[in-house]
Amino acid sequence: MKYCSRCGADLSYRIPEGDDRTRFICDNCKTVHYENPKMVVGCIPVLEESILFCRRAIEPRYGKWTLPAGFLEKGETVEAGAIRETSEEAGARVEGLKPFALYNLTFIGQVYLMFRGRMMDAQFLAGDESLEVKLFREDEVPWDDLAFPVIRETLRLYFADRARGLFSFHTGEIRPKADDHSIKPF
Amino acid sequence: MKYCSRCGADLSYRIPEGDDRTRFICDNCKTVHYENPKMVVGCIPVLEESILFCRRAIEPRYGKWTLPAGFLEKGETVEAGAIRETSEEAGARVEGLKPFALYNLTFIGQVYLMFRGRMMDAQFLAGDESLEVKLFREDEVPWDDLAFPVIRETLRLYFADRARGLFSFHTGEIRPKADDHSIKPF
Repeated sequence: MKYCSRCGADLSYRIPEGDDRTRFICDNCKTVHYENPKMVVGCIPVLEESILFCRRAIEPRYGKWTLPAGFLEKGETVEAGAIRETSEEAGARVEGLKPFALYNLTFIGQVYLMFRGRMMDAQFLAGDESLEVKLFREDEVPWDDLAFPVIRETLRLYFADRARGLFSFHTGEIRPKADDHSIKPF
Repeated sequence: MKYCSRCGADLSYRIPEGDDRTRFICDNCKTVHYENPKMVVGCIPVLEESILFCRRAIEPRYGKWTLPAGFLEKGETVEAGAIRETSEEAGARVEGLKPFALYNLTFIGQVYLMFRGRMMDAQFLAGDESLEVKLFREDEVPWDDLAFPVIRETLRLYFADRARGLFSFHTGEIRPKADDHSIKPF
């Protein structure tokens, strides 16, 4: 951030009066440009004993398996966002969404909210961002080819809850791995 | 948003190629400036049978009662944000935070995440944004002087869960009231 999006003047980066954090400030029109974490919403699409996965057609993690998820858009609810991503990336329709897990990814300024969702039928289709879309039973999950730690953790918790016959709402934090080059800070 | 925060050029507002939503786009440096909902994190600070409320010293809803809550900051977890707001607005320390309710406020581009938290002691103190801070038992809650519908809904659910002896995680949507002039769209 270099220029004021409101008046076009140069921005400074300092602590505003009465604040305790460094912010981008316009000394011309006095606007403080706050930076806030972004929400990513996603879904575990469930059909009987199986879960629907997408293989990524985009970087980072091209070719790796993931669950449908993406940035929440202005004007949509978190549930609507998760349904939209499932439709866009996996061509599948889900209903009965239940919040399943919330993760802090502070190192990239993101909060992930994953839902469980019931697939309305057995139809699915790879969207523009997916190479292929496929149903996996628990013993078929490609654990070594998952795209992100947040997806691994979501699946681990899902199968653990399913095994004990009780789903609860989980919260957690995902930290960067030293060797992880897939992480793009915002 | 009028100018590109990256290069200072004028922005257009149209649908980018391959997208399906109107965005602010810089035709000079090609940056797409996405607008995303913001997360507000807050807490129900609990001390025995009572809950700690703050009376607002700022607009909107100056003088009305609320629970500690505010925008999640970059680099902090949702739990840390709720603890920080409770400290800043109510001068109280909470621990053992449990996620309690998540609300969509699509009309102002916000997602509220409210926690339950145990007060570590009976100390509290009005911060800069509060006129006073006070413990209320259920029968003392100033229902007619609450600042926002999201606070009313959170309290309603809290007392209902407490009465049945079982707390769960709730999701909901808050819609604008026709006569509500306190709402500032972003």
